[in-house]
Amino acid sequence: AGDSIAGQKVMTQCQVCHGKDGIGKLSYTPNISGQKYEYLVHSLMAYKIGQRKSQMMSSVVKNLSDEDIANVAAYYAAIKITVEAPQ
Amino acid sequence: AGDSIAGQKVMTQCQVCHGKDGIGKLSYTPNISGQKYEYLVHSLMAYKIGQRKSQMMSSVVKNLSDEDIANVAAYYAAIKITVEAPQ
Repeated sequence: AGDSIAGQKVMTQCQVCHGKDGIGKLSYTPNISGQKYEYLVHSLMAYKIGQRKSQMMSSVVKNLSDEDIANVAAYYAAIKITVEAPQ
Repeated sequence: AGDSIAGQKVMTQCQVCHGKDGIGKLSYTPNISGQKYEYLVHSLMAYKIGQRKSQMMSSVVKNLSDEDIANVAAYYAAIKITVEAPQ
């Protein structure tokens, strides 16, 4: 698993769309606060290898090392969320 | 936007992996509680047209109408989450 503290530096490249707290700034930008670490790594790698297509994400992810990806995934996964069970 | 009440019926097909509250049951199953409605619709459609690949998701989504997709997206998007801002 990645280092969430080291991930804070990588997060500075993500926060413009995803926010420091993981709440997406645009209507189609996903919330990633407290998202599953493995799912975040899976998604970032999918953008890195072109399995998922997004100009924005590919332009950011292409400069990230696998370690950067693990660390920023750990950063966002570590954010605490509470969920109100639906009625 | 979809109808979150009608979405509850569709959710019964999702809850085995995603839970009634949207918290993923498996380490790689994403949390979708309070996720952005447009992102959920985008992701479900991506699985439906094969842009995103997942045996599990494709097998479920292929039986969903566009209205089902809008309604279940509205259901999960309506779940209230609170995020603790990271220090």
